[in-house]
Amino acid sequence: MQSTVDFWYEFASTYSFLAAERIEALAAERDVAVRWRPFLLGAIFKAQGHETTPFNTYPVKGRYMWRDMERWCERLGLPLVRPDPFPQNSLVAARVALALPEDARAAFSKAVFRAEFCEGRPISDPAVIADAVRQTGFELETAVTAAQTDLVKHALRKETEEAQRLGLFGAPTIVTGDGELFWGNDRLEEALDWARGRP
Amino acid sequence: MQSTVDFWYEFASTYSFLAAERIEALAAERDVAVRWRPFLLGAIFKAQGHETTPFNTYPVKGRYMWRDMERWCERLGLPLVRPDPFPQNSLVAARVALALPEDARAAFSKAVFRAEFCEGRPISDPAVIADAVRQTGFELETAVTAAQTDLVKHALRKETEEAQRLGLFGAPTIVTGDGELFWGNDRLEEALDWARGRP
Repeated sequence: MQSTVDFWYEFASTYSFLAAERIEALAAERDVAVRWRPFLLGAIFKAQGHETTPFNTYPVKGRYMWRDMERWCERLGLPLVRPDPFPQNSLVAARVALALPEDARAAFSKAVFRAEFCEGRPISDPAVIADAVRQTGFELETAVTAAQTDLVKHALRKETEEAQRLGLFGAPTIVTGDGELFWGNDRLEEALDWARGRP
Repeated sequence: MQSTVDFWYEFASTYSFLAAERIEALAAERDVAVRWRPFLLGAIFKAQGHETTPFNTYPVKGRYMWRDMERWCERLGLPLVRPDPFPQNSLVAARVALALPEDARAAFSKAVFRAEFCEGRPISDPAVIADAVRQTGFELETAVTAAQTDLVKHALRKETEEAQRLGLFGAPTIVTGDGELFWGNDRLEEALDWARGRP
């Protein structure tokens, strides 16, 4: 039986962007299925007493992260543009991602991430969301209307609560079927290796 | 010409222990030389306003780290015993490491780390330090006496200042000859790949 992992990501997160770019090919190589699960890391940070991302609170950590992103993007052949402000407000993107059918979530999410980190576009801008929905082939209006319903707002709150319950404290985090957590874009291979053959 | 990287590590740090176990073989495979540079991460944490390691400040992060350590130690075939208290006071170990000749530093450091994380022994205990010095073939008394001199105390302060100047905020960190930083045991391969062929 094929294993499945949960890919928990945050639209404002630089390393979630890298992971979104990489995870599909790495999972396919190992015959592992991936469930895309956006959540709001900011809510978890706030519960821990953080006002913003540690990359802003600790400038030395922030400088390292941006240089690390430059190296990674160069390796992946992607331009890197720092969004301003950073982090971006990811609420609408996360709601639309959840409103879309599961099989459209990857395409939508990758499009949002590229707009944000390769073009520096604001992901709370309806035009950016619209462009990303168009990548999925689904109707824009249906998705945006659904994203504004209590049903989807509730679903996103539940997902974020679930992330917190699982012990997530950063993004991206892979959770395997047997409940192991692997935090960080640099742990994708390890997480998928772990998952392979453990249905 | 052979490349050299600086391996900055902290004796109280779990991931520095893993890196100390792994770095020599990985560097040899790539024909990269490694300079072992112990420093006091606690001093840098304090300058950033942290009272202790984030693994204690944020229990959810600490739980993840210890589980991650279990997985890594299992993979490396090493027992894992959590030192109590964590983090250990690493001052004496760092001073003795600097007092020893450079070519003895790796053997000493690995012995300290194993006592700490495989046997749960307190690394501020003179008996633990003595056992580790014995691994190097150097005379115990010479090393311990040297470690108490102002010369070595000064050297450790300078090393820690240098780490801070370079922008280090965690351990282990690899710094390549061209000034790139790679933070974390999970970045050793990447750091050494970067260094290879860049003298």
